[in-house]
Amino acid sequence: MSEAPPVASGAPAGRPAGASPRIRTRSRVSAERSWLSNAWYVAAWDFEVDQAPLARTICGVPMVFYRKLDRGVVALRDACPHRLLPLSLGLREGDSIRCKYHGLKLGPDGKAQEMPTRGDPVNRAICAEAFVVYERHRFVWVWVGDASLADPALIPDLWPCSAQGWAFDGGYYPVAADYRLGIDNLMDLTHETYVHMGSIGQPEILESPIETSVEGQKVTVSRWMAGIDAPPFWRGALKQEGPVDRWQICEFILPSAVIIDVGVAPVAAGASLESHDQGVRGFVIDFMTPESATSHHYFWGMARNFDIDDAGFTARFKRQQGGVFLEDKAILEAQQRSLDANPELRLSAYRIDEGGTRARQIIARAIKAQAPPAGTGDPA
Amino acid sequence: MSEAPPVASGAPAGRPAGASPRIRTRSRVSAERSWLSNAWYVAAWDFEVDQAPLARTICGVPMVFYRKLDRGVVALRDACPHRLLPLSLGLREGDSIRCKYHGLKLGPDGKAQEMPTRGDPVNRAICAEAFVVYERHRFVWVWVGDASLADPALIPDLWPCSAQGWAFDGGYYPVAADYRLGIDNLMDLTHETYVHMGSIGQPEILESPIETSVEGQKVTVSRWMAGIDAPPFWRGALKQEGPVDRWQICEFILPSAVIIDVGVAPVAAGASLESHDQGVRGFVIDFMTPESATSHHYFWGMARNFDIDDAGFTARFKRQQGGVFLEDKAILEAQQRSLDANPELRLSAYRIDEGGTRARQIIARAIKAQAPPAGTGDPA
Amino acid sequence: MSEAPPVASGAPAGRPAGASPRIRTRSRVSAERSWLSNAWYVAAWDFEVDQAPLARTICGVPMVFYRKLDRGVVALRDACPHRLLPLSLGLREGDSIRCKYHGLKLGPDGKAQEMPTRGDPVNRAICAEAFVVYERHRFVWVWVGDASLADPALIPDLWPCSAQGWAFDGGYYPVAADYRLGIDNLMDLTHETYVHMGSIGQPEILESPIETSVEGQKVTVSRWMAGIDAPPFWRGALKQEGPVDRWQICEFILPSAVIIDVGVAPVAAGASLESHDQGVRGFVIDFMTPESATSHHYFWGMARNFDIDDAGFTARFKRQQGGVFLEDKAILEAQQRSLDANPELRLSAYRIDEGGTRARQIIARAIKAQAPPAGTGDPA
Repeated sequence: MSEAPPVASGAPAGRPAGASPRIRTRSRVSAERSWLSNAWYVAAWDFEVDQAPLARTICGVPMVFYRKLDRGVVALRDACPHRLLPLSLGLREGDSIRCKYHGLKLGPDGKAQEMPTRGDPVNRAICAEAFVVYERHRFVWVWVGDASLADPALIPDLWPCSAQGWAFDGGYYPVAADYRLGIDNLMDLTHETYVHMGSIGQPEILESPIETSVEGQKVTVSRWMAGIDAPPFWRGALKQEGPVDRWQICEFILPSAVIIDVGVAPVAAGASLESHDQGVRGFVIDFMTPESATSHHYFWGMARNFDIDDAGFTARFKRQQGGVFLEDKAILEAQQRSLDANPELRLSAYRIDEGGTRARQIIARAIKAQAPPAGTGDPA
Repeated sequence: MSEAPPVASGAPAGRPAGASPRIRTRSRVSAERSWLSNAWYVAAWDFEVDQAPLARTICGVPMVFYRKLDRGVVALRDACPHRLLPLSLGLREGDSIRCKYHGLKLGPDGKAQEMPTRGDPVNRAICAEAFVVYERHRFVWVWVGDASLADPALIPDLWPCSAQGWAFDGGYYPVAADYRLGIDNLMDLTHETYVHMGSIGQPEILESPIETSVEGQKVTVSRWMAGIDAPPFWRGALKQEGPVDRWQICEFILPSAVIIDVGVAPVAAGASLESHDQGVRGFVIDFMTPESATSHHYFWGMARNFDIDDAGFTARFKRQQGGVFLEDKAILEAQQRSLDANPELRLSAYRIDEGGTRARQIIARAIKAQAPPAGTGDPA
Repeated sequence: MSEAPPVASGAPAGRPAGASPRIRTRSRVSAERSWLSNAWYVAAWDFEVDQAPLARTICGVPMVFYRKLDRGVVALRDACPHRLLPLSLGLREGDSIRCKYHGLKLGPDGKAQEMPTRGDPVNRAICAEAFVVYERHRFVWVWVGDASLADPALIPDLWPCSAQGWAFDGGYYPVAADYRLGIDNLMDLTHETYVHMGSIGQPEILESPIETSVEGQKVTVSRWMAGIDAPPFWRGALKQEGPVDRWQICEFILPSAVIIDVGVAPVAAGASLESHDQGVRGFVIDFMTPESATSHHYFWGMARNFDIDDAGFTARFKRQQGGVFLEDKAILEAQQRSLDANPELRLSAYRIDEGGTRARQIIARAIKAQAPPAGTGDPA
C-alpha cells in the first residue's frame, strides 16, 4: 500500500471530490516480513496468563508464557533447548519450568538450572530464548526483536485501559487473516453499515464526513457530528436530554493498535475535536498481533468513563461487543481466503480507505527503516 | 497421453490382436493448464442458480452466479474489486449485487454503480470481471477465456436434454480428481463390471467388441449387441417381448462432455449403428468441469424418450443413477490420491483405454492450438 | 547427529564429568532420505495381514499386503499398473488380486494374469512392483530397496519374539513423527521419569549410571543395578524374596529396532551384564518403520520368559504397555510439530543422548555407504 502520495503531517486529507483512482496494492505474502520486529505486541490479556503455561505464537515465534510466584510474567521460546519439546507441555516448579520429556529445568531467564541427569553439573550455556515482557494497560506485552531496544516507554499509550475513573474489559479472538486486514477494517467504520447490519450498523454514519490526518507515526480518522440527537446507547450513558455533539476518532498506533475514541457531549458543553472530555466517552481498544503471515491474535475491548462500577453493564457490553467482532472475524477470514484464491488480484484503495492505507505505509516505512543494519531501532 | 499413433478420422481403431504395449503417459499436474480456456463449460444446473448468489470455482477462477429479475444469469469474479471480499457473501439488490464489506454496488456487468461512500461520484472504471454465460440444455454454461470468442454456437450439442419428446433430469457431485480421470472413466464402460459390481455391472458387456473412432474433435466408442434378449430395464422401457438390438455409444465432445447413447430396438425394426431411433433410447449425460488441477464438478443425468411423463420414474432413476455415480466418485478420488502418492508412476493405456486416450489427445492438441497467439480460437 | 566424535568399538562411553557441550544437530527433512533402503523393515504384525488386502506405506512407498492360500504374504506396490487405482481396493481371487477399476488381474508376483478385456492375450510385461517379504519373529518384514540384496539372514535377530519358553505380544501405533525421534526416545530411558510420570516413571532410575557402547552397527546403553530390592512388578515375576541384581539394556539394531533387555536375578545367582539368564527376563521390542519423513509405524511389544502360559497376564500387560506408549506417541508428535514450527532450532545432544546419537550416526553412515553405486549392499 505504498502507492498513495504521502500526506503532509497533521493536514486533513482524503477529501477530493470523487473517488480516488483505483490504487493497486500489494498485499501478497512476500519473502519479507509484513510486521515490525522491534516493537511491543500484545501477547495476552493479563487474566490469560497464570502459573500454568500458555502457548501462543507471536510474530511467527512459538512462545510460552507463565507467571512467577511474584506474578511477574515469563516469556520463553516454546521449545526445550534439549530436544525441542514444547515447554508449554512442561511442569512448573517455583519460578522455573521443567521439560516434560527429559526433565531439563530452566529458570525464568531461560537458563538451565538442572540437567536431565540429576547431579550432572549444569551447563549454563544451555538456555531457551527469553523474551522481554512488560505488563501494562491490562495486557502482557512482548518484544520479539532486539531485546536491547525493548524500552517500556515505547509501549503504545492505551491510557484509558488503566486510568483512574475508567472501566475496561474485553476479549480475545484468533483470526485467520493477515493482521493488516484487521487494521484496514478498523480504520474505516464505513463497514459497520454492511458487516454489522444486524447489530450496530447505522446508515447515517455514512452521511457524516471524515477527516484523515497523519502525525508522525499516528494516523487519525475523525468524524464529528455536531448538534445531533444522541442515539439510545449514548443517551443512556449521558443520562440527560438535549442535542449533543458526537465523535468517532480512529487512531492507528504502531505497530498494530487501533483505538477508537467515541462519545457524546451536550452541545452546551462546547466540546471540540481537540478537547471533548465534557460528556461521556469510551475507547474501543483493538490490538492485532501477527501470528503468521495469514493469521493474527485479536485483542479487543472497551474502556469507558461512565457507569464504571456497573459490573452488569461491563458484562453485557463485552458480550455485545464480542458478537459484533465475530462478524468482523468472519469477514476478515473470508477476505483472506479470497486473497489466496485470487492471486492475480490486488486490494484497491478508495477514499474511505485512506486511514488504512496510511497505516500500512507507516508500517512499511518502519519495517524498511529497521531492516538493513539490524537493531537500528524503532523511532518513537 | 500423446504416445498412441493418430487414428485416421472416422476409421475403426483399437482392435489389434493383443493388448497394446504398456504406454507411459504423463498425467502429472504440470505448469501448463490441463484444460482448454476458450471453451464453454457447464457451471451449474439451471435449478442451482437463483436470486441468491452461488459461489463456484470454474477452471481455477472463483465465480459467483445469480439470476436477474428477468431470470438471466450473471457470472462475476467472486471477489469485490475493492477489498476482494467474495461477492457471494453480498446482498442482492435488483439486478445488482452489493458487497457485504463496504457496500460497493456492482451491476450485472460487474461495473460499479454505487461507491461505498454514498454520494461519491461513481468511478466506472471499477468493475468485477464478468463472464459470458449462456443457458442451454438445462445447464448454465460459462466461457472462461477470451470473451470475444464466446460464440453460443460452440456450446456442445446436448440436444436430448432439451428436445421435445424427451425427459431429462440429473444431479451434481464435486469430485476431488483431475477432470480427465472422469473422461477416461466414461469413455470405457469396461469399468462397470467391477466398479458397479453391486449395481449395474454386467459381465456380458465385456464379451461384446467395441469400436473406437475419431472424427474431427469427437471420439466415439461403440458397442453394438445384435439380436440379444433385452435386459429387464430395457424390456420394461420397450414394453414388448422378443429379441432386440442393443447399443452403447460413448461420445466425447470438447471441452469435457461425454454423452452415452444407450437403448434397444426390436430386431425387426432394423436399427443400425448409424440409425437407431426405432426403439427406446436414452442419453447418459456427463459433463466434467475443471475446478482445479485435481478436482472437478461432475454434472450427470439421463435424457430418455420413453415414459417421459412418468415423474416417479424420473425420480427413481435419478436416485439410482446418483448411487452409481457415487461409486465412480469414490474410485476417481482414490485414483487421484494414488497418482499423488506414486509420483514416479504413470498411467498406462491398454486397448480399452483408446477412447479416453483419443479424448486426451484432442484436449491436448486444442490447448496447444490456443496457446501461443492468445485468442487464436477454438475450432468447431 | 554426526558431530560427536566416534566411540571406540565396544568401549564404554559417555561418562565425562559434566554435560557434553551443546551439540547442534541437523534433524531437518532434507532432500536425502533419512532412512536406509536396502534393509528389512517391519511392515506389520503377523495377525494384521490376512486374505483381505492391507494398505500401508513403507519408506514412502504405498504397498498392499495380503496372504495367499498357503498363508505366505504378498507385498505389491499399492497401485494398479493400468490406471493406478490402489490395489488394496481390489478383489482377492485365489492367490491373485483383481483391480476394482477395470479388472486387471495380477498374480502374487505382481505380473498380469488377465487383461481387463476378457480373452485378450495377456501382456506379461505388465506388472505391479513386488517386494520381498519374509515372516519372522511374529512380524511381516519387507525389503524396500534392491531386491537382489534381500537376504533373510539380515533380518534383525529378535529371537525372544519367537523362541521356545518365551511369550510375546504387543501392538501397533501410527506416529506422526520422524522415526529417528522414536529411536532417540527409546535409547534414553531417562524420559520415563517425566513422560511416564503417571505410569512407570521411577526417579531412582536416574540415580543409576549408564554405559554406552558401540559394536559394529549395534549401540548398547546399559544400566546395572546391583543388590537392590526388586520393585513390585519384578518381585511378582521372580516369585521369591531377597535382594536382586536388576538390569536395563537398550540395544539399537539397524535399520530401526530398539530392544530393551530388562529383568532381575537373585544376587546369589551371580548374574552379570554379560550373562544374566538366571532370573526373570523380558525384552521390550520396538520397531520404528518410516512411513514418510515425518511419520512412522511403531510396532511395540514385550517378550518374557516367566508366566508364559498366563494369557491374562499377557493381555493385562499389553494393555498397560499400550497406555505407556501412547504417552510417548503424544510426546513424539508434539516434538515433531515443534521441529516444524522452529526451523531455526536444532536438536541438542547431552550425555544422556549418547545412545540415540550413536544410533543416528550408524544410520547416517549406512545410508552414505549404500548411496553412490546403487546396490552396494548393507554390511551385516
